[in-house]
Amino acid sequence: MRPRAVVLFSGGLDSTTCLSIAKVEGFDPIALSFHYGQRHTNEIECAALIASAAGVEHLITEIDLAAFGGSALVDHSIDVPKHNDVSEIDESGSTIPATYVPARNTIFLSFALAVAEVRGANDIYIGVNAVDYSGYPDCRPEFIESFQAMANLATRVGVEGNQLRIRTPLLQLTKAQIIARGIELGVEYGETLSCYDPAADGGACRYCDACLLRARGFFDAGIADPTRYSVTSKRG
Amino acid sequence: MRPRAVVLFSGGLDSTTCLSIAKVEGFDPIALSFHYGQRHTNEIECAALIASAAGVEHLITEIDLAAFGGSALVDHSIDVPKHNDVSEIDESGSTIPATYVPARNTIFLSFALAVAEVRGANDIYIGVNAVDYSGYPDCRPEFIESFQAMANLATRVGVEGNQLRIRTPLLQLTKAQIIARGIELGVEYGETLSCYDPAADGGACRYCDACLLRARGFFDAGIADPTRYSVTSKRG
Repeated sequence: MRPRAVVLFSGGLDSTTCLSIAKVEGFDPIALSFHYGQRHTNEIECAALIASAAGVEHLITEIDLAAFGGSALVDHSIDVPKHNDVSEIDESGSTIPATYVPARNTIFLSFALAVAEVRGANDIYIGVNAVDYSGYPDCRPEFIESFQAMANLATRVGVEGNQLRIRTPLLQLTKAQIIARGIELGVEYGETLSCYDPAADGGACRYCDACLLRARGFFDAGIADPTRYSVTSKRG
Repeated sequence: MRPRAVVLFSGGLDSTTCLSIAKVEGFDPIALSFHYGQRHTNEIECAALIASAAGVEHLITEIDLAAFGGSALVDHSIDVPKHNDVSEIDESGSTIPATYVPARNTIFLSFALAVAEVRGANDIYIGVNAVDYSGYPDCRPEFIESFQAMANLATRVGVEGNQLRIRTPLLQLTKAQIIARGIELGVEYGETLSCYDPAADGGACRYCDACLLRARGFFDAGIADPTRYSVTSKRG
Protein backbone atom coordinates (compact mmCIF):
# COMPACT_ATOMS: atom_id res chain seq x y z
CA MET A 1 0.00 0.00 0.00
CA ARG A 2 1.33 3.41 -0.91
CA PRO A 3 1.82 5.86 1.98
CA ARG A 4 -0.69 8.67 2.25
CA ALA A 5 0.30 12.30 1.75
CA VAL A 6 -1.86 15.38 2.24
CA VAL A 7 -1.70 17.75 -0.74
CA LEU A 8 -2.89 21.33 -0.35
CA PHE A 9 -4.94 21.69 -3.48
CA SER A 10 -6.61 24.82 -4.82
CA GLY A 11 -7.31 23.57 -8.34
CA GLY A 12 -4.77 26.04 -9.69
CA LEU A 13 -1.77 25.39 -11.89
CA ASP A 14 0.79 24.95 -9.10
CA SER A 15 -1.18 22.72 -6.75
CA THR A 16 -2.49 20.55 -9.59
CA THR A 17 1.10 19.96 -10.68
CA CYS A 18 1.97 19.21 -7.05
CA LEU A 19 -0.78 16.59 -6.90
CA SER A 20 0.68 14.80 -9.93
CA ILE A 21 4.18 14.99 -8.44
CA ALA A 22 2.93 13.47 -5.15
CA LYS A 23 1.55 10.53 -7.14
CA VAL A 24 4.70 10.02 -9.18
CA GLU A 25 6.76 10.25 -5.97
CA GLY A 26 4.90 7.19 -4.69
CA PHE A 27 2.14 8.61 -2.49
CA ASP A 28 -1.57 8.03 -2.38
CA PRO A 29 -2.68 11.67 -2.04
CA ILE A 30 -5.45 13.17 0.05
CA ALA A 31 -6.23 16.48 -1.67
CA LEU A 32 -7.29 19.23 0.75
CA SER A 33 -9.11 22.36 -0.46
CA PHE A 34 -10.50 25.32 1.43
CA HIS A 35 -13.61 27.30 0.90
CA TYR A 36 -12.29 30.25 2.88
CA GLY A 37 -14.30 33.20 1.64
CA GLN A 38 -12.17 33.75 -1.47
CA ARG A 39 -13.83 35.65 -4.31
CA HIS A 40 -12.56 33.05 -6.77
CA THR A 41 -14.69 30.16 -5.48
CA ASN A 42 -14.76 28.67 -8.98
CA GLU A 43 -11.34 27.25 -8.10
CA ILE A 44 -13.03 24.81 -5.71
CA GLU A 45 -15.24 23.51 -8.51
CA CYS A 46 -12.15 23.06 -10.70
CA ALA A 47 -10.41 21.32 -7.80
CA ALA A 48 -13.30 18.89 -7.33
CA LEU A 49 -13.39 17.99 -11.04
CA ILE A 50 -9.63 17.49 -11.23
CA ALA A 51 -9.50 15.35 -8.06
CA SER A 52 -12.40 13.25 -9.27
CA ALA A 53 -10.84 12.70 -12.70
CA ALA A 54 -7.56 11.71 -11.00
CA GLY A 55 -9.34 9.28 -8.65
CA VAL A 56 -7.94 11.13 -5.63
CA GLU A 57 -9.70 11.51 -2.27
CA HIS A 58 -10.71 15.14 -1.91
CA LEU A 59 -11.57 16.97 1.31
CA ILE A 60 -13.09 20.45 1.18
CA THR A 61 -12.94 22.41 4.43
CA GLU A 62 -15.01 25.48 5.20
CA ILE A 63 -13.26 28.27 7.06
CA ASP A 64 -14.20 31.91 7.18
CA LEU A 65 -11.16 34.08 6.62
CA ALA A 66 -13.45 36.73 5.11
CA ALA A 67 -14.70 37.46 8.64
CA PHE A 68 -11.24 38.80 9.48
CA GLY A 69 -10.81 40.77 6.22
CA GLY A 70 -7.50 42.36 5.39
CA SER A 71 -7.02 41.05 1.85
CA ALA A 72 -8.30 41.77 -1.64
CA LEU A 73 -8.93 38.03 -2.04
CA VAL A 74 -11.55 37.90 0.70
CA ASP A 75 -12.65 41.51 1.15
CA HIS A 76 -14.76 42.80 -1.73
CA SER A 77 -14.09 46.40 -0.70
CA ILE A 78 -10.40 45.98 -1.67
CA ASP A 79 -9.76 45.72 -5.43
CA VAL A 80 -7.62 42.93 -6.85
CA PRO A 81 -4.68 44.77 -8.46
CA LYS A 82 -4.70 44.59 -12.27
CA HIS A 83 -1.89 45.29 -14.72
CA ASN A 84 -1.62 45.61 -18.48
CA ASP A 85 1.54 43.58 -18.54
CA VAL A 86 3.56 41.20 -16.37
CA SER A 87 6.41 43.76 -16.28
CA GLU A 88 4.23 45.95 -14.05
CA ILE A 89 4.27 43.33 -11.28
CA ASP A 90 6.80 43.93 -8.50
CA GLU A 91 8.59 40.59 -8.33
CA SER A 92 11.36 41.74 -6.01
CA GLY A 93 9.47 40.58 -2.95
CA SER A 94 10.02 44.00 -1.40
CA THR A 95 6.30 44.75 -1.24
CA ILE A 96 3.49 42.50 -0.10
CA PRO A 97 0.58 42.65 -2.56
CA ALA A 98 -3.04 43.41 -1.64
CA THR A 99 -3.91 39.80 -2.50
CA TYR A 100 -1.87 38.52 0.45
CA VAL A 101 -4.24 36.80 2.89
CA PRO A 102 -2.86 37.13 6.43
CA ALA A 103 -1.60 33.80 7.77
CA ARG A 104 -3.35 31.86 5.01
CA ASN A 105 -0.62 29.31 4.34
CA THR A 106 -0.07 28.88 8.09
CA ILE A 107 -3.77 28.10 8.50
CA PHE A 108 -3.86 25.81 5.46
CA LEU A 109 -0.77 23.89 6.61
CA SER A 110 -2.21 23.61 10.13
CA PHE A 111 -5.33 21.91 8.79
CA ALA A 112 -3.16 19.70 6.59
CA LEU A 113 -1.24 18.78 9.74
CA ALA A 114 -4.48 17.76 11.47
CA VAL A 115 -5.51 15.62 8.50
CA ALA A 116 -2.02 14.11 8.28
CA GLU A 117 -2.06 13.19 11.95
CA VAL A 118 -5.56 11.70 11.90
CA ARG A 119 -4.95 9.76 8.69
CA GLY A 120 -1.43 8.58 9.46
CA ALA A 121 0.36 10.59 6.79
CA ASN A 122 3.89 11.87 7.40
CA ASP A 123 4.04 14.02 4.28
CA ILE A 124 2.35 17.27 3.29
CA TYR A 125 2.73 18.81 -0.17
CA ILE A 126 2.35 22.53 -0.80
CA GLY A 127 2.90 24.20 -4.16
CA VAL A 128 4.75 27.28 -2.98
CA ASN A 129 7.29 28.81 -5.26
CA ALA A 130 10.24 31.07 -4.54
CA VAL A 131 11.26 31.91 -8.10
CA ASP A 132 8.22 33.59 -9.65
CA TYR A 133 7.97 35.27 -6.28
CA SER A 134 4.62 36.74 -5.40
CA GLY A 135 5.89 38.68 -2.40
CA TYR A 136 3.94 36.59 0.09
CA PRO A 137 5.97 36.00 3.28
CA ASP A 138 4.40 32.57 3.73
CA CYS A 139 5.76 31.27 0.41
CA ARG A 140 9.41 31.62 1.43
CA PRO A 141 11.66 28.60 2.06
CA GLU A 142 12.51 29.81 5.58
CA PHE A 143 8.81 29.86 6.46
CA ILE A 144 8.34 26.29 5.22
CA GLU A 145 11.37 25.02 7.17
CA SER A 146 10.14 26.73 10.29
CA PHE A 147 6.63 25.32 9.90
CA GLN A 148 8.08 21.82 9.53
CA ALA A 149 10.11 22.19 12.72
CA MET A 150 7.02 23.42 14.57
CA ALA A 151 4.87 20.61 13.15
CA ASN A 152 7.23 18.00 14.55
CA LEU A 153 6.80 19.48 18.02
CA ALA A 154 3.04 19.97 17.71
CA THR A 155 1.90 16.46 17.04
CA ARG A 156 1.79 12.88 18.23
CA VAL A 157 3.79 11.87 15.14
CA GLY A 158 6.54 14.28 16.11
CA VAL A 159 6.58 13.20 19.76
CA GLU A 160 6.71 9.56 18.77
CA GLY A 161 9.79 10.14 16.66
CA ASN A 162 8.43 10.07 13.15
CA GLN A 163 9.33 12.96 10.95
CA LEU A 164 6.66 15.08 9.37
CA ARG A 165 7.90 16.52 6.11
CA ILE A 166 6.56 19.57 4.30
CA ARG A 167 7.32 18.85 0.65
CA THR A 168 7.69 21.76 -1.77
CA PRO A 169 8.59 20.28 -5.16
CA LEU A 170 7.95 23.58 -6.99
CA LEU A 171 10.00 25.75 -4.66
CA GLN A 172 12.94 26.30 -7.00
CA LEU A 173 11.18 25.99 -10.36
CA THR A 174 10.15 28.81 -12.66
CA LYS A 175 6.52 28.86 -13.77
CA ALA A 176 7.67 27.61 -17.19
CA GLN A 177 9.52 24.69 -15.56
CA ILE A 178 6.46 23.85 -13.47
CA ILE A 179 4.32 23.75 -16.61
CA ALA A 180 6.87 21.64 -18.48
CA ARG A 181 7.01 19.17 -15.57
CA GLY A 182 3.21 19.03 -15.41
CA ILE A 183 2.87 18.40 -19.15
CA GLU A 184 5.35 15.48 -18.75
CA LEU A 185 3.09 14.09 -16.02
CA GLY A 186 -0.09 14.50 -18.09
CA VAL A 187 -1.62 17.45 -16.22
CA GLU A 188 -4.54 18.95 -18.17
CA TYR A 189 -3.92 22.65 -17.52
CA GLY A 190 -7.14 23.64 -19.30
CA GLU A 191 -8.97 22.26 -16.24
CA THR A 192 -7.07 24.42 -13.75
CA LEU A 193 -7.96 27.94 -12.67
CA SER A 194 -5.34 30.41 -11.44
CA CYS A 195 -7.22 33.72 -11.68
CA TYR A 196 -7.78 35.73 -8.47
CA ASP A 197 -10.81 37.50 -9.88
CA PRO A 198 -12.69 35.39 -12.42
CA ALA A 199 -15.50 37.04 -14.38
CA ALA A 200 -19.18 36.13 -14.14
CA ASP A 201 -18.74 33.71 -17.06
CA GLY A 202 -16.13 31.79 -15.00
CA GLY A 203 -13.29 32.79 -17.30
CA ALA A 204 -9.94 34.15 -16.10
CA CYS A 205 -9.61 37.96 -15.95
CA ARG A 206 -6.27 38.12 -17.82
CA TYR A 207 -4.96 41.12 -15.82
CA CYS A 208 -4.41 40.00 -12.21
CA ASP A 209 -0.94 38.89 -11.04
CA ALA A 210 -1.94 35.23 -11.17
CA CYS A 211 -3.21 35.48 -14.77
CA LEU A 212 -0.18 37.41 -15.98
CA LEU A 213 2.39 35.14 -14.30
CA ARG A 214 0.58 32.10 -15.66
CA ALA A 215 0.46 33.48 -19.21
CA ARG A 216 4.19 34.27 -19.09
CA GLY A 217 4.86 30.74 -17.87
CA PHE A 218 3.13 29.18 -20.87
CA PHE A 219 4.87 31.62 -23.20
CA ASP A 220 8.30 30.86 -21.72
CA ALA A 221 7.62 27.11 -21.80
CA GLY A 222 6.69 27.37 -25.48
CA ILE A 223 3.40 25.64 -24.77
CA ALA A 224 0.03 26.82 -26.03
CA ASP A 225 -1.94 28.37 -23.17
CA PRO A 226 -5.20 26.42 -22.68
CA THR A 227 -6.52 28.96 -20.14
CA ARG A 228 -10.16 29.87 -20.69
CA TYR A 229 -10.27 33.66 -20.44
CA SER A 230 -13.43 35.59 -19.83
CA VAL A 231 -14.97 37.01 -23.01
CA THR A 232 -15.97 40.09 -21.02
CA SER A 233 -12.71 40.68 -19.14
CA LYS A 234 -11.54 44.25 -18.99
CA ARG A 235 -8.43 45.88 -17.61
CA GLY A 236 -10.58 46.69 -14.54
CA MET B 1 -4.72 53.73 23.42
CA ARG B 2 -3.82 50.33 24.76
CA PRO B 3 -2.27 47.89 22.28
CA ARG B 4 -4.47 45.06 21.08
CA ALA B 5 -3.71 41.43 21.93
CA VAL B 6 -5.51 38.34 20.65
CA VAL B 7 -6.47 35.96 23.48
CA LEU B 8 -7.41 32.37 22.68
CA PHE B 9 -10.49 32.01 24.79
CA SER B 10 -12.51 28.87 25.41
CA GLY B 11 -14.48 30.10 28.41
CA GLY B 12 -12.63 27.64 30.63
CA LEU B 13 -10.69 28.31 33.81
CA ASP B 14 -7.27 28.77 32.17
CA SER B 15 -8.23 30.99 29.24
CA THR B 16 -10.52 33.15 31.39
CA THR B 17 -7.60 33.75 33.75
CA CYS B 18 -5.45 34.50 30.70
CA LEU B 19 -7.95 37.11 29.53
CA SER B 20 -7.74 38.91 32.88
CA ILE B 21 -3.94 38.73 32.82
CA ALA B 22 -3.86 40.25 29.30
CA LYS B 23 -5.90 43.18 30.61
CA VAL B 24 -3.75 43.71 33.69
CA GLU B 25 -0.64 43.49 31.50
CA GLY B 26 -1.90 46.55 29.62
CA PHE B 27 -3.61 45.12 26.55
CA ASP B 28 -7.03 45.69 25.03
CA PRO B 29 -7.90 42.05 24.30
CA ILE B 30 -9.68 40.54 21.32
CA ALA B 31 -11.01 37.21 22.63
CA LEU B 32 -11.09 34.46 20.00
CA SER B 33 -13.21 31.33 20.45
CA PHE B 34 -13.77 28.35 18.18
CA HIS B 35 -16.83 26.36 17.49
CA TYR B 36 -14.85 23.41 16.16
CA GLY B 37 -17.17 20.46 16.53
CA GLN B 38 -16.39 19.91 20.22
CA ARG B 39 -18.94 18.00 22.24
CA HIS B 40 -18.72 20.60 25.00
CA THR B 41 -20.22 23.48 22.99
CA ASN B 42 -21.61 24.98 26.21
CA GLU B 43 -18.12 26.41 26.69
CA ILE B 44 -18.79 28.85 23.83
CA GLU B 45 -21.90 30.13 25.59
CA CYS B 46 -19.87 30.60 28.79
CA ALA B 47 -17.18 32.36 26.75
CA ALA B 48 -19.70 34.76 25.22
CA LEU B 49 -21.17 35.64 28.62
CA ILE B 50 -17.76 36.17 30.23
CA ALA B 51 -16.47 38.32 27.33
CA SER B 52 -19.62 40.40 27.35
CA ALA B 53 -19.45 40.96 31.13
CA ALA B 54 -15.78 41.98 30.77
CA GLY B 55 -16.58 44.39 27.92
CA VAL B 56 -14.13 42.56 25.66
CA GLU B 57 -14.50 42.16 21.87
CA HIS B 58 -15.28 38.52 21.16
CA LEU B 59 -14.85 36.69 17.86
CA ILE B 60 -16.29 33.20 17.42
CA THR B 61 -14.93 31.26 14.47
CA GLU B 62 -16.53 28.17 12.98
CA ILE B 63 -14.19 25.40 11.91
CA ASP B 64 -15.02 21.76 11.45
CA LEU B 65 -12.40 19.60 13.13
CA ALA B 66 -15.06 16.94 13.65
CA ALA B 67 -14.89 16.21 9.91
CA PHE B 68 -11.36 14.87 10.44
CA GLY B 69 -12.17 12.92 13.62
CA GLY B 70 -9.41 11.32 15.65
CA SER B 71 -10.31 12.65 19.12
CA ALA B 72 -12.82 11.92 21.85
CA LEU B 73 -13.56 15.65 21.99
CA VAL B 74 -14.96 15.76 18.46
CA ASP B 75 -15.79 12.14 17.64
CA HIS B 76 -18.81 10.85 19.52
CA SER B 77 -17.81 7.25 18.83
CA ILE B 78 -14.75 7.70 21.11
CA ASP B 79 -15.57 7.96 24.84
CA VAL B 80 -14.13 10.78 26.94
CA PRO B 81 -12.00 8.96 29.55
CA LYS B 82 -13.44 9.13 33.07
CA HIS B 83 -11.77 8.43 36.40
CA ASN B 84 -12.92 8.09 39.96
CA ASP B 85 -10.04 10.15 41.22
CA VAL B 86 -7.37 12.53 39.96
CA SER B 87 -4.67 10.01 40.97
CA GLU B 88 -5.84 7.81 38.08
CA ILE B 89 -4.75 10.42 35.52
CA ASP B 90 -1.35 9.80 33.91
CA GLU B 91 0.36 13.14 34.43
CA SER B 92 3.80 12.00 33.33
CA GLY B 93 3.20 13.16 29.78
CA SER B 94 4.29 9.75 28.53
CA THR B 95 0.91 9.00 26.97
CA ILE B 96 -1.28 11.25 24.88
CA PRO B 97 -4.90 11.07 26.05
CA ALA B 98 -7.91 10.30 23.83
CA THR B 99 -9.07 13.89 24.30
CA TYR B 100 -6.08 15.19 22.34
CA VAL B 101 -7.38 16.90 19.17
CA PRO B 102 -4.77 16.58 16.41
CA ALA B 103 -3.11 19.91 15.65
CA ARG B 104 -5.76 21.85 17.55
CA ASN B 105 -3.50 24.42 19.18
CA THR B 106 -1.59 24.84 15.91
CA ILE B 107 -4.86 25.61 14.14
CA PHE B 108 -6.09 27.91 16.93
CA LEU B 109 -2.82 29.83 17.01
CA SER B 110 -2.83 30.11 13.21
CA PHE B 111 -6.23 31.79 13.28
CA ALA B 112 -5.06 34.01 16.13
CA LEU B 113 -2.11 34.96 13.94
CA ALA B 114 -4.47 35.95 11.11
CA VAL B 115 -6.54 38.09 13.47
CA ALA B 116 -3.40 39.63 14.98
CA GLU B 117 -2.07 40.55 11.58
CA VAL B 118 -5.32 42.02 10.30
CA ARG B 119 -5.97 43.95 13.51
CA GLY B 120 -2.42 45.15 14.10
CA ALA B 121 -1.77 43.15 17.26
CA ASN B 122 1.74 41.86 18.02
CA ASP B 123 0.72 39.72 20.98
CA ILE B 124 -1.20 36.46 21.25
CA TYR B 125 -2.14 34.91 24.60
CA ILE B 126 -2.71 31.20 25.04
CA GLY B 127 -3.46 29.53 28.37
CA VAL B 128 -1.29 26.45 27.98
CA ASN B 129 0.21 24.94 31.03
CA ALA B 130 3.22 22.67 31.46
CA VAL B 131 2.83 21.85 35.14
CA ASP B 132 -0.55 20.16 35.44
CA TYR B 133 0.51 18.45 32.26
CA SER B 134 -2.26 16.95 30.20
CA GLY B 135 0.07 15.06 27.88
CA TYR B 136 -0.83 17.14 24.85
CA PRO B 137 2.24 17.73 22.64
CA ASP B 138 0.95 21.16 21.63
CA CYS B 139 0.97 22.47 25.21
CA ARG B 140 4.74 22.14 25.65
CA PRO B 141 7.02 25.19 25.90
CA GLU B 142 9.14 23.97 22.97
CA PHE B 143 6.04 23.91 20.77
CA ILE B 144 5.12 27.47 21.72
CA GLU B 145 8.65 28.76 21.06
CA SER B 146 8.70 27.05 17.70
CA PHE B 147 5.30 28.44 16.76
CA GLN B 148 6.47 31.94 17.63
CA ALA B 149 9.56 31.59 15.43
CA MET B 150 7.40 30.35 12.56
CA ALA B 151 4.85 33.15 13.06
CA ASN B 152 7.55 35.77 12.65
CA LEU B 153 8.48 34.29 9.27
CA ALA B 154 4.88 33.77 8.14
CA THR B 155 3.54 37.27 8.33
CA ARG B 156 3.85 40.85 7.22
CA VAL B 157 4.57 41.85 10.81
CA GLY B 158 7.48 39.44 10.94
CA VAL B 159 8.88 40.53 7.58
CA GLU B 160 8.61 44.17 8.56
CA GLY B 161 10.66 43.59 11.67
CA ASN B 162 8.10 43.67 14.42
CA GLN B 163 8.12 40.79 16.79
CA LEU B 164 5.05 38.67 17.26
CA ARG B 165 4.97 37.25 20.74
CA ILE B 166 3.08 34.17 21.90
CA ARG B 167 2.41 34.89 25.57
CA THR B 168 1.86 32.00 27.95
CA PRO B 169 1.43 33.46 31.43
CA LEU B 170 0.15 30.16 32.87
CA LEU B 171 2.94 28.00 31.51
CA GLN B 172 4.80 27.47 34.77
CA LEU B 173 1.89 27.77 37.22
CA THR B 174 0.08 24.94 38.96
CA LYS B 175 -3.68 24.87 38.66
CA ALA B 176 -3.91 26.12 42.25
CA GLN B 177 -1.60 29.05 41.43
CA ILE B 178 -3.66 29.88 38.34
CA ILE B 179 -6.81 29.96 40.44
CA ALA B 180 -5.18 32.09 43.14
CA ARG B 181 -3.97 34.56 40.49
CA GLY B 182 -7.43 34.68 38.91
CA ILE B 183 -9.13 35.31 42.24
CA GLU B 184 -6.71 38.23 42.81
CA LEU B 185 -7.78 39.64 39.43
CA GLY B 186 -11.48 39.22 40.14
CA VAL B 187 -12.20 36.25 37.86
CA GLU B 188 -15.62 34.75 38.54
CA TYR B 189 -14.81 31.05 38.21
CA GLY B 190 -18.44 30.05 38.62
CA GLU B 191 -19.01 31.42 35.10
CA THR B 192 -16.29 29.27 33.52
CA LEU B 193 -16.71 25.74 32.19
CA SER B 194 -13.81 23.29 32.06
CA CYS B 195 -15.62 19.98 31.55
CA TYR B 196 -14.93 17.96 28.37
CA ASP B 197 -18.26 16.18 28.53
CA PRO B 198 -20.97 18.29 30.17
CA ALA B 199 -24.31 16.63 30.93
CA ALA B 200 -27.62 17.54 29.33
CA ASP B 201 -28.32 19.94 32.21
CA GLY B 202 -25.14 21.87 31.27
CA GLY B 203 -23.36 20.88 34.47
CA ALA B 204 -19.82 19.55 34.62
CA CYS B 205 -19.44 15.73 34.60
CA ARG B 206 -17.05 15.59 37.57
CA TYR B 207 -15.04 12.59 36.26
CA CYS B 208 -13.20 13.72 33.10
CA ASP B 209 -9.55 14.84 33.31
CA ALA B 210 -10.54 18.51 33.05
CA CYS B 211 -13.06 18.25 35.93
CA LEU B 212 -10.69 16.31 38.17
CA LEU B 213 -7.70 18.61 37.60
CA ARG B 214 -9.90 21.64 38.17
CA ALA B 215 -11.33 20.25 41.41
CA ARG B 216 -7.84 19.46 42.70
CA GLY B 217 -6.78 23.00 41.82
CA PHE B 218 -9.51 24.54 43.95
CA PHE B 219 -8.76 22.09 46.76
CA ASP B 220 -5.01 22.88 46.68
CA ALA B 221 -5.69 26.62 46.49
CA GLY B 222 -7.93 26.36 49.56
CA ILE B 223 -10.71 28.08 47.66
CA ALA B 224 -14.32 26.88 47.56
CA ASP B 225 -15.07 25.33 44.17
CA PRO B 226 -17.90 27.27 42.48
CA THR B 227 -18.19 24.72 39.66
CA ARG B 228 -21.76 23.80 38.81
CA TYR B 229 -21.76 20.02 38.55
CA SER B 230 -24.46 18.08 36.78
CA VAL B 231 -27.05 16.64 39.15
CA THR B 232 -27.22 13.56 36.91
CA SER B 233 -23.48 12.99 36.41
CA LYS B 234 -22.33 9.42 36.70
CA ARG B 235 -18.91 7.78 36.62
CA GLY B 236 -19.77 6.90 32.94
